[in-house]
Amino acid sequence: MGYRVVPLTKLIEQFERLPGIGKKSAQRLAFHLLNMPQEKAKDFTDTILYAREHIHRCARCQNLTDQPLCPICDDPNRDDSTICVVENPQDVIAIERTRDYKGKYHVLHGLISPMDGVGPDQLYIKELLGIIGEGRVQEVIMATDPTAEGEATAMYISRLLKPLGVKVTRLAFGIPIGSNLEYADEVTLNRAMQGRSEI
Amino acid sequence: MGYRVVPLTKLIEQFERLPGIGKKSAQRLAFHLLNMPQEKAKDFTDTILYAREHIHRCARCQNLTDQPLCPICDDPNRDDSTICVVENPQDVIAIERTRDYKGKYHVLHGLISPMDGVGPDQLYIKELLGIIGEGRVQEVIMATDPTAEGEATAMYISRLLKPLGVKVTRLAFGIPIGSNLEYADEVTLNRAMQGRSEI
Repeated sequence: MGYRVVPLTKLIEQFERLPGIGKKSAQRLAFHLLNMPQEKAKDFTDTILYAREHIHRCARCQNLTDQPLCPICDDPNRDDSTICVVENPQDVIAIERTRDYKGKYHVLHGLISPMDGVGPDQLYIKELLGIIGEGRVQEVIMATDPTAEGEATAMYISRLLKPLGVKVTRLAFGIPIGSNLEYADEVTLNRAMQGRSEI
Repeated sequence: MGYRVVPLTKLIEQFERLPGIGKKSAQRLAFHLLNMPQEKAKDFTDTILYAREHIHRCARCQNLTDQPLCPICDDPNRDDSTICVVENPQDVIAIERTRDYKGKYHVLHGLISPMDGVGPDQLYIKELLGIIGEGRVQEVIMATDPTAEGEATAMYISRLLKPLGVKVTRLAFGIPIGSNLEYADEVTLNRAMQGRSEI
């Protein structure tokens, strides 16, 4: 008979199933949860269950929220003539962190990826077209990733939007700030060259 | 008004509080939990709460178990003349993984550390002495970490046990298998030299 503590093994396995958590981390997390004060552990599981119950997509931009409209769609001070289109809610958090963007968002919840069987119909593109149809949007910034899927999705949506008279732009891609040019990969360098601007 | 989704932010914060989980990982884990099927998320939180409720220390060796005695103490095929003393249950898992050790364990749940205010009385040393007192133990292997605290704890316990006529041994420390000698730190190399044996 080998070493076996059923609930402990199950607990470690639960953490191992999470993305980016290896065997060692799963073990550390499991023991951490076991050693937490009872009310903190309860708070942890309650927060998960509460969030799952109350968080849903914003009726307008599809970002995640616990209100009918997300705080950004609901904010009269945000400029609704500009929409930034992103793959997922994490991207909204990343762009909001810059504190620079004052427009609205639209979350696709995915990218077109024939390899994974994801077509345009599985993304929230119809909802974007509905908002454009209201007539207030002047610019749509395609902020999908600079990957094959991100580029394909940006191209697909821009082809739908241009006939509607909306300006469609794409984020700039190039050498990341603070990095060394000599370590940039060729594709990035290539994009940086193509995107060069006069100074 | 900034970007704010209260239950989502709370969920991310819960993960950020876990050891070894940074901002990015916390975000990834939170979204993963949100996107899980409902029954899997419930299974995750149930496992945590169940484990916390049912896992306690083994009445004999202090390892974690959901039974009165842990499976190792309860196993008549394990040799109870040898006890391997470790800091915590993770160490038991690590040693069991070698599938080589057939004796029993004793889990201290900590190391003597005056800096952190942990003295011998806060460890399960009395319980170890009780088991030695039964008269069946012939060897105690001190398998605490090769750190100041681990060494101090090993020395402290060996000084208590030697007068009782028990053989006390210490794990070998040296160059890890599969690593490069040139990258070993001086302290490890020094220990490896001291611990050299004839071939």
